[in-house]
Amino acid sequence: MEQNQRYSLVERPAGMPDENHLKLEDAPMPTVGDGELLLRTIYLSLDPYMRGRMNAASSYAQYVELGDVMTGRTVSEVVASKSDDFKPGDIVLSENGWQRYAAVPVASVRKLDPEQAPVSTAVGILGMPGLTAYVGLLDLAQPKAGETVVVSAAAGAVGQVVGQLAKMKGCRVVGVAGAEDKCRHVVEAYGLDACINHRDSDFFDQLKAACPDGIDVYFENVGGHVFDSVMQLVNDFARIPVCGRIAHYNQTELPTGADRLIPFMGKVLIKRLMIRGFIQSDHWDRLPAFQADMSRWIREGKVKYQEDIVDGLENALSAFQGLLEGANRGKLLVQVSSDPTQR
Amino acid sequence: MEQNQRYSLVERPAGMPDENHLKLEDAPMPTVGDGELLLRTIYLSLDPYMRGRMNAASSYAQYVELGDVMTGRTVSEVVASKSDDFKPGDIVLSENGWQRYAAVPVASVRKLDPEQAPVSTAVGILGMPGLTAYVGLLDLAQPKAGETVVVSAAAGAVGQVVGQLAKMKGCRVVGVAGAEDKCRHVVEAYGLDACINHRDSDFFDQLKAACPDGIDVYFENVGGHVFDSVMQLVNDFARIPVCGRIAHYNQTELPTGADRLIPFMGKVLIKRLMIRGFIQSDHWDRLPAFQADMSRWIREGKVKYQEDIVDGLENALSAFQGLLEGANRGKLLVQVSSDPTQR
Repeated sequence: MEQNQRYSLVERPAGMPDENHLKLEDAPMPTVGDGELLLRTIYLSLDPYMRGRMNAASSYAQYVELGDVMTGRTVSEVVASKSDDFKPGDIVLSENGWQRYAAVPVASVRKLDPEQAPVSTAVGILGMPGLTAYVGLLDLAQPKAGETVVVSAAAGAVGQVVGQLAKMKGCRVVGVAGAEDKCRHVVEAYGLDACINHRDSDFFDQLKAACPDGIDVYFENVGGHVFDSVMQLVNDFARIPVCGRIAHYNQTELPTGADRLIPFMGKVLIKRLMIRGFIQSDHWDRLPAFQADMSRWIREGKVKYQEDIVDGLENALSAFQGLLEGANRGKLLVQVSSDPTQR
Repeated sequence: MEQNQRYSLVERPAGMPDENHLKLEDAPMPTVGDGELLLRTIYLSLDPYMRGRMNAASSYAQYVELGDVMTGRTVSEVVASKSDDFKPGDIVLSENGWQRYAAVPVASVRKLDPEQAPVSTAVGILGMPGLTAYVGLLDLAQPKAGETVVVSAAAGAVGQVVGQLAKMKGCRVVGVAGAEDKCRHVVEAYGLDACINHRDSDFFDQLKAACPDGIDVYFENVGGHVFDSVMQLVNDFARIPVCGRIAHYNQTELPTGADRLIPFMGKVLIKRLMIRGFIQSDHWDRLPAFQADMSRWIREGKVKYQEDIVDGLENALSAFQGLLEGANRGKLLVQVSSDPTQR
């Protein structure tokens, strides 16, 4: 009999989480009740939102209790089934968390069809990150042809989709990323008009030069100095959907100085900006349209995607640390066990 | 022959404008060209946005040049007409500015029908302030029955309309104003569920008690500590239309301390807020519907309004100073000359 293995949250991090906070430990194999499935994790999705779940602060989702397995979406294989609807070998989208095995109720999973798309995409471009891009850009920002769209984390799981959708809409699209090779990839693979490295000392000047007509849409998922720079370049009636603030997730102290909230709100008024926080899970009514559109666009070659697959559950923590620092190249996944659909 | 008299902007104010910045002076009577009207100002509308026009900063409208007459909307009587479409005695909505007489092109005025409504309402509840309330609340915030709506400056030109429209929508409506008599008026005359005096030392506690289910819509036109208090009470998916920030218009220095913009944007994300700056002049497509609805509501007694009419152009500056400090009671107007429709 195999052993389960998992990351438990044993202490809440103040800044960057490390092995003092997330502990890799052996655990008993889960027992399977009626109407439940025993699942073996194939892919664990690593996403920035997880950092928030480690805090004991009220947010849009329940935080992880100390001692519990760290939560996370997974693509899994059914090992044992106590349900007529599933059989061993079925591949499902589930929420196993950061562990090798989980027993979950049937109602919590969705069966995947490996013929339709690589199963890993269920936690990527055809899953939560793709829906975030689709809802945030198309429904909330509503870019029009000829407008300038800036997307931060442009090489990441969400950003890579945003950039391509904005190009499909006929916009000038400028990406922002944290490395030269990311910027090159964004332009060459996704067809963005430009991509600026936010670690360059002349980042603002480069961004300004790349947006000669100002910025009409900013897809915000990083915060920090990228947000500050963009705010200096926004046009009247700019729309700013906000789905992430990764630059601040490990922040333990606020910078001091002038209170920038006051001029910010002044700018919201004078430029008639729309700032809109959103989370894809509030927009599940858009899931059918999103999945139909996005799978067609992928088949037609109109939308491409890049995955960054790290091998082995034991590397999940370092991979997650890298994600918070921008080390990943595309959608970050941990391959916890072999993918039977790829044999 | 009568003499013209006007307020000229002779120096740009840093904080509160006074007689060093706006100078009351005699001026020659304007000459009337072809296709123009000579107008006598009856009512001059005083509105908070005027403070911004005194600054040489880019905003949504052109600022006033030094030496020019201070701009402002007026209700005026035609004294002389070089157009077949207007005759002496006609009452028009115009932009005479802070002066007794103006010569303006016909295309810049709109004829008013004194039979339909008191002509002063053309710069009040049936004009720009009314449209601001209508668009901001109904189109942008879209309150639903049972939700809690908070409106600041609840006794003012815009706020008094917002509160009543929100009541019509079946909301719990809590006003905020800066004096006990204003708060009483808002509750008694407009039917709001409560109105809190923001000058009370326990303002936040009172606001919290008046909003037991949190705040779903905040109609923002003041900024300052009212905004800060509301932000602590907003519910998920709250909508915040922003049409003014009067608490900051005379501000010369930003408070220092922690940079509150960062936690603010965090809250925007976590609570999925919609922050939306707007100005009524971007929504003139809504003018016909607004005027039809609002004049009907006034006739039916569903919407009431209060005007604060100050007598004499020479009192315009002190009245405007009072407006910025909250001294007015309802929509502030200056009666520059007698209203022939009220004889």
